Amino acid sequence: MLRLTPQNHNRIGRTPIYEATYGGAESNVACSLAQLGAQAEFVTKLPENAVADGAIATLKSFGVNTDHIARGGNRMGVYYLERGSSVRASKVVYDRADSAMALAQAADFNWDEIFRGAAWFHFTGITAGISKNALELCKIAVKKAKEKGLTVSFDPNYRAKLWTKEEAREAMKELTPYADVLISNAPQTLDVYELDCGSEEKTMRALAEKFDLQSVVFTDRISRSADDNGYFASSLAGGKNGKYYVSKRYELHPIVDRVGGGDAFAAGDIFSANKYENEQQRLDFAVAAAAFKHTIDGDINVACEAEIAALAEGDGSGRVQR
Amino acid sequence: MLRLTPQNHNRIGRTPIYEATYGGAESNVACSLAQLGAQAEFVTKLPENAVADGAIATLKSFGVNTDHIARGGNRMGVYYLERGSSVRASKVVYDRADSAMALAQAADFNWDEIFRGAAWFHFTGITAGISKNALELCKIAVKKAKEKGLTVSFDPNYRAKLWTKEEAREAMKELTPYADVLISNAPQTLDVYELDCGSEEKTMRALAEKFDLQSVVFTDRISRSADDNGYFASSLAGGKNGKYYVSKRYELHPIVDRVGGGDAFAAGDIFSANKYENEQQRLDFAVAAAAFKHTIDGDINVACEAEIAALAEGDGSGRVQR
Amino acid sequence: MLRLTPQNHNRIGRTPIYEATYGGAESNVACSLAQLGAQAEFVTKLPENAVADGAIATLKSFGVNTDHIARGGNRMGVYYLERGSSVRASKVVYDRADSAMALAQAADFNWDEIFRGAAWFHFTGITAGISKNALELCKIAVKKAKEKGLTVSFDPNYRAKLWTKEEAREAMKELTPYADVLISNAPQTLDVYELDCGSEEKTMRALAEKFDLQSVVFTDRISRSADDNGYFASSLAGGKNGKYYVSKRYELHPIVDRVGGGDAFAAGDIFSANKYENEQQRLDFAVAAAAFKHTIDGDINVACEAEIAALAEGDGSGRVQR
Amino acid sequence: MLRLTPQNHNRIGRTPIYEATYGGAESNVACSLAQLGAQAEFVTKLPENAVADGAIATLKSFGVNTDHIARGGNRMGVYYLERGSSVRASKVVYDRADSAMALAQAADFNWDEIFRGAAWFHFTGITAGISKNALELCKIAVKKAKEKGLTVSFDPNYRAKLWTKEEAREAMKELTPYADVLISNAPQTLDVYELDCGSEEKTMRALAEKFDLQSVVFTDRISRSADDNGYFASSLAGGKNGKYYVSKRYELHPIVDRVGGGDAFAAGDIFSANKYENEQQRLDFAVAAAAFKHTIDGDINVACEAEIAALAEGDGSGRVQR
Amino acid sequence: MLRLTPQNHNRIGRTPIYEATYGGAESNVACSLAQLGAQAEFVTKLPENAVADGAIATLKSFGVNTDHIARGGNRMGVYYLERGSSVRASKVVYDRADSAMALAQAADFNWDEIFRGAAWFHFTGITAGISKNALELCKIAVKKAKEKGLTVSFDPNYRAKLWTKEEAREAMKELTPYADVLISNAPQTLDVYELDCGSEEKTMRALAEKFDLQSVVFTDRISRSADDNGYFASSLAGGKNGKYYVSKRYELHPIVDRVGGGDAFAAGDIFSANKYENEQQRLDFAVAAAAFKHTIDGDINVACEAEIAALAEGDGSGRVQR
Amino acid sequence: MLRLTPQNHNRIGRTPIYEATYGGAESNVACSLAQLGAQAEFVTKLPENAVADGAIATLKSFGVNTDHIARGGNRMGVYYLERGSSVRASKVVYDRADSAMALAQAADFNWDEIFRGAAWFHFTGITAGISKNALELCKIAVKKAKEKGLTVSFDPNYRAKLWTKEEAREAMKELTPYADVLISNAPQTLDVYELDCGSEEKTMRALAEKFDLQSVVFTDRISRSADDNGYFASSLAGGKNGKYYVSKRYELHPIVDRVGGGDAFAAGDIFSANKYENEQQRLDFAVAAAAFKHTIDGDINVACEAEIAALAEGDGSGRVQR
Repeated sequence: MLRLTPQNHNRIGRTPIYEATYGGAESNVACSLAQLGAQAEFVTKLPENAVADGAIATLKSFGVNTDHIARGGNRMGVYYLERGSSVRASKVVYDRADSAMALAQAADFNWDEIFRGAAWFHFTGITAGISKNALELCKIAVKKAKEKGLTVSFDPNYRAKLWTKEEAREAMKELTPYADVLISNAPQTLDVYELDCGSEEKTMRALAEKFDLQSVVFTDRISRSADDNGYFASSLAGGKNGKYYVSKRYELHPIVDRVGGGDAFAAGDIFSANKYENEQQRLDFAVAAAAFKHTIDGDINVACEAEIAALAEGDGSGRVQR
Repeated sequence: MLRLTPQNHNRIGRTPIYEATYGGAESNVACSLAQLGAQAEFVTKLPENAVADGAIATLKSFGVNTDHIARGGNRMGVYYLERGSSVRASKVVYDRADSAMALAQAADFNWDEIFRGAAWFHFTGITAGISKNALELCKIAVKKAKEKGLTVSFDPNYRAKLWTKEEAREAMKELTPYADVLISNAPQTLDVYELDCGSEEKTMRALAEKFDLQSVVFTDRISRSADDNGYFASSLAGGKNGKYYVSKRYELHPIVDRVGGGDAFAAGDIFSANKYENEQQRLDFAVAAAAFKHTIDGDINVACEAEIAALAEGDGSGRVQR
Repeated sequence: MLRLTPQNHNRIGRTPIYEATYGGAESNVACSLAQLGAQAEFVTKLPENAVADGAIATLKSFGVNTDHIARGGNRMGVYYLERGSSVRASKVVYDRADSAMALAQAADFNWDEIFRGAAWFHFTGITAGISKNALELCKIAVKKAKEKGLTVSFDPNYRAKLWTKEEAREAMKELTPYADVLISNAPQTLDVYELDCGSEEKTMRALAEKFDLQSVVFTDRISRSADDNGYFASSLAGGKNGKYYVSKRYELHPIVDRVGGGDAFAAGDIFSANKYENEQQRLDFAVAAAAFKHTIDGDINVACEAEIAALAEGDGSGRVQR
Repeated sequence: MLRLTPQNHNRIGRTPIYEATYGGAESNVACSLAQLGAQAEFVTKLPENAVADGAIATLKSFGVNTDHIARGGNRMGVYYLERGSSVRASKVVYDRADSAMALAQAADFNWDEIFRGAAWFHFTGITAGISKNALELCKIAVKKAKEKGLTVSFDPNYRAKLWTKEEAREAMKELTPYADVLISNAPQTLDVYELDCGSEEKTMRALAEKFDLQSVVFTDRISRSADDNGYFASSLAGGKNGKYYVSKRYELHPIVDRVGGGDAFAAGDIFSANKYENEQQRLDFAVAAAAFKHTIDGDINVACEAEIAALAEGDGSGRVQR
Repeated sequence: MLRLTPQNHNRIGRTPIYEATYGGAESNVACSLAQLGAQAEFVTKLPENAVADGAIATLKSFGVNTDHIARGGNRMGVYYLERGSSVRASKVVYDRADSAMALAQAADFNWDEIFRGAAWFHFTGITAGISKNALELCKIAVKKAKEKGLTVSFDPNYRAKLWTKEEAREAMKELTPYADVLISNAPQTLDVYELDCGSEEKTMRALAEKFDLQSVVFTDRISRSADDNGYFASSLAGGKNGKYYVSKRYELHPIVDRVGGGDAFAAGDIFSANKYENEQQRLDFAVAAAAFKHTIDGDINVACEAEIAALAEGDGSGRVQR
Repeated sequence: MLRLTPQNHNRIGRTPIYEATYGGAESNVACSLAQLGAQAEFVTKLPENAVADGAIATLKSFGVNTDHIARGGNRMGVYYLERGSSVRASKVVYDRADSAMALAQAADFNWDEIFRGAAWFHFTGITAGISKNALELCKIAVKKAKEKGLTVSFDPNYRAKLWTKEEAREAMKELTPYADVLISNAPQTLDVYELDCGSEEKTMRALAEKFDLQSVVFTDRISRSADDNGYFASSLAGGKNGKYYVSKRYELHPIVDRVGGGDAFAAGDIFSANKYENEQQRLDFAVAAAAFKHTIDGDINVACEAEIAALAEGDGSGRVQR
């Protein structure tokens, strides 16, 4: 999607200037992974026009493979992000109906070819929610990924502006069993899986059991104001009887841009899963990635592995590096 | 529509910043008329969101009445305008499919109420071309306008990116007979009415006869490059046997922004029709309005009557006013 | 007034770029009221030039009626606002001497016509302080408003850069008796009315008695730094023996722009007075409006009723709305 | 004066951003002279505020001595410059009434001290026209300059927005006899001195005779449009019977900013008078300085001697210097 | 190199804002080729820092392969480009001494690996001129390219700010014999090869003979001012007795940015050499590419094949594409 | 040095726009002193190009004398400053190798002339660390200053990106004995002088003894995050047995720009040393200057004496000044 952000703290509809960046849950994850040093590919459908060409150029500039992006359809999704501050929340206006991806067909993607040589497949419930077609494509892709032996991570990411809770629940019931790793949080789990076992740990064990998951990760955001959040995460590693971990906690204020924080977390988690034996280290890396994202304008976590590792290991004092 | 223009001469998809203004054929005409001192109202359908609220605020700021704008639907049309220069033409990317106006219904507008107290109705073929619904609405509106005794002006404004020539021709055949004033140009007349009688004057007389028009006006643009145009107009006043006028000619270079030039002309023509007895003066005023528009960023001709009249009467020397 | 704000945190006299917006106490209130859904008109005198035309266009864009703005005189007031931060206060440089409004005459305004159909008149001590003429005009207007049975609200808003305390006190003595609603705060009351009865409540009761006021409202700002304030308000409703209310309190940090916070409060109070029976709700709405303003660039509180009501009812957590 | 220029080609009152620079006839000349390598001082009165501090900092940054600028009064002059293009002229809105300079008094300036060590005094009719006080100050200064044996250059620069022709004529009659060098042009000479002898040369000889001038210089601007001018100059050197010279002519298109072109010319003329024996060279240098100015944003000709000399000697081909 | 361009027409050292893009002769060619649809790789040495990472991201965003860019050294070259206008030429300030590339060593590049699968090698005299090391690297690379049977194109591009004519001549004598295609122009040929045979055709035949070239191409720029150039090219195809072609000529005014025009030409020539049988078509394509570049900000010709082909076939009228 | 700061919170290498200001330790001190009202001169070597001309113009604009700046060499140092936020530290990329100053020679400066009439010499270890030449120049200058009886203040300011600890220690051993005033902090003292006596006071007494210092000042920064610091200072006045003072402490959040905070402190200390008898007042003034700097964009503390004095005396509440 093209993201249009009013300059300064101007409101949508009253701003003379929009800053143009590109974003979207899975592409944010791909861009972040590529910068961390992983090989990442982003698959979607984009129209044949200059705006979409810009999105592809941005993906390439981060080193993301774009070879299997289907081209066609009429338009690319756009979203407007109004930066909030203190008591005023940031606000998103979506304009993504009838985007190329919303109208994409099974024939647009050859998953055998796409998955050749791949080891991990990540997707989110946002893509599943943009249209019936997109939901069908998610089902096809995730089944194929599973078949081919890829690890599958899934972030349900329910958005009320895209679909109703009922529609989302039905879809999640079908999609989640294919996942190995579930990245979510407690309020979403209640919305989407109607599950709350009293403690985060218990809820995570219940999810692991219900969907036969290898790993469940919950992020926790304490939202004191638009500029002031606490942030940490917990994970259940090794299935329903696995070990439970709680990460370091960051106090984030001010917040430059919190959009994409969850995607930065997902990228950090996927990257560290392939990097660290130690589960605690893995979780701390993912949380540090999410914290770092809050300091950067735009959806994408512009950061390399060394920066995230340094933060995870403790250098958050903000001393100038010179 | 929201218009997004890359800063400087950047290309769409490569610009970090877009300037945000609002535009669209009929709303450009309305804004221009209101600034010239006429009472003007703009009727359309816009979604209930902050982007559309901004469009309404802009219309109000020019003094245009917005009381009958219907609200609803999902999105507002967007278009990207890449500023060209010399050998590179400006380029438009439309993203207006399924806009609120494209999906509007007859029930959204109460024309009896809208036309109460009105004397003139102006519309263009762009609106007719955005969707089947919009075409039907144009037919309803123009019939009602005629019935109520309003003067009707029509600019066919064929856009190849909206519909095929065949579709446009069929629509024009139905719409044009309701017009009193036709604002067009020779190449469009050939495209849309398949009519070319060898000279502009003859073609105009043929149009006046075929559609029983009071007045036909043709603009002429000599496009030497994206920044360098000649511009003048001719008119046939008083029906098929009326008198033929040719305006003063302007050499426009450089051109700050030529989008909206035709709409500035239409506004100038409608305004001067109600102001000047003298047909030559009327035509010269309209052409001066169009010339002035080429010096201003954005779709809308930010100009008052005195400025246009001064230019029409000859002060185009560019001496600083101090 | 035209407000010129240096880009970023640049200092006046060292900035290469100014952002141009419009502001002024009463016009801020009018713009806010119109957005909340009330019918609002702004009356002033402005010169016949392009800068002033821009002010009128801005008022119109918010839906404020500008029909009775007198035109004439030589200049429009300008003020420079330097954004402070933490230990550095924001700074205002006024350039409003001899503005059209400062030199306006009684004959510029026909109050009978202006007040036709009106129910409420709001004005501030800033207008009274800009010149002798302006003070006389305030007296004429407020007497006429009272005569016609309008509710009158008054915010003394003493500014040391405009007049001395002695001049202000004299003026206030004449103006305040015409008010029904007094919007002020404890330090101002001491400056202007030389009144401090030990507690806010007692001072408010004394004011209500002295000037026979229906309602007295005090805002309280705890200024910890330029970016970090506490904010709440208290009100005395129903005259000197009325009931005393204390609002919810907001901690505002960071602060995008605190200028216009008091005007947002006044607009919130006037709007809610006509909306809510419940005095506590009324006060909480006004305070929420003021808090919201602190998150927006420019003098004017760009906000609709639903947004303020949502904040008043408790959603200040800053979660992204998507 | 503070100059506020709308970004891009936006119109005053419709621009969200102003670019802030400083300018004014005599200060432009001083800044230009200092950059060319001469010792230059600028004398005026400015208020004690941050906006005026910025003007002084700008003068200093060009190397202009500001030691005798009086401080006091309420405000500094402001002017808005709307950039024109092709058929639309640039437009100036002055807001300089009651500026510190307009209200300055004789006691603000100690001319004995100011002129210590000085050899040349330059002033313009713009300063004389801003107020009665300013006119009196001009008279005092020019008399003192003459007394002390400085060469005096004067540019009448009549501005219809400042005073009437009658007022200007009376003032010029008093001021011009003190001048040694008169910098003007044919239309101004007619306006101000009511003199037109059929040819420029004859008019110049008549002026030299009437006011006993050493040198008269006329600039000629052929204004084809706001972006397209011809520019040259002629001079009469050595009094009424002196020799007549015509400069090289430049075709200037596009024009980045023509404001300050005449001041750049004056600075070029004063500088070259002290540099070149050859009158033709002197005139060509001054015209090249004026031509160069048209390529630069802002009032001030940001250029060193070598650049002007290179242009005067013929390198106007625009080949990139690398 | 990082290119820093003052905003608007500001001068270096007086601008508050620089626009940051990346450029350099060979990388411009590579970016242009990749956009036209060719496989292109850029080889250089860049330091390990964030500024250089940005250069690589930009190359990737255009689809250029960056796999063999060596990393190390202390700094990346920077250049400042001041935009000229009419009589003021654009101006370049280089800051490239001791850049990573200037200090690169033979061991930084494994040419066997770099040239695997490659068919064409393009380089310029700018790289040869930046340091002794760089010159040695050019020699190694071009010999290896020749050995491996790649077509070699060479643009001597003499820059007086980098080396003396004597140094350049010596270097060219060694480098040119390895070239198959020479891209130059008449004044450069005189500077670098001390050759002028009276007509361009004769000079080109002499060059072809002297260095045994397959093809010689000369561009011709008629520089009327910084904004107004004529541009065409001629070529000698098939060696010293080959056929001589002259391209279509473009009048370019205004010029948005002429830097990179020659690189756009080179890319056009290399691309069309592999695309068109017809030599005239090849030459016209290359000239159209250069003309198109003049309309775009930044060093790089942001354009696809279809746009260049359309211009080459004649659509330079600048009509808006909608 | 030219300082290039990415717009907003963009990262170096990903920003489309850089803001251009000038900075550097000693020049920051000079600019600050000149604004406070002291006579200040800055001595360095700069190349003869437009970028360096801009640095000189900036110094002049603050009133700093630039008469003894040597011109020559190839380039001026550049540094990129990436603004951090909360957990992400600001980041500096230096590009100052082979700058004119790094290659300057003894013959470039005539210290007898430079120090004529001077009373104080301030320098930092940053200049000493940029090259061997610069270190030699520091030694020459400081000896000469001592000889001439100037007070010498020295801030070791060790930067790991410029030299190793071993190199720095050796240099400091030679330079420090010439100082009268040492401005440092505890961690730097440990790095550079290998000294830590358990308490700040004891360490300061040991330094005073070792180097026979009149005064030692330590700043203390408590870095909670990039935007949130505590800041205070302590001083030992009157040599090793002198009295120990601790300043007022400021909580700085948010921080607009912390670069230059130490230089603002040094300027405050030098200024107040010549102004206040009272040591506590002197220290509080210097700390207030440093605190104020954190609220301003750019290296330089844009502030006058009255503003710093007001803050030192307690007005840090951030109330708008109007």
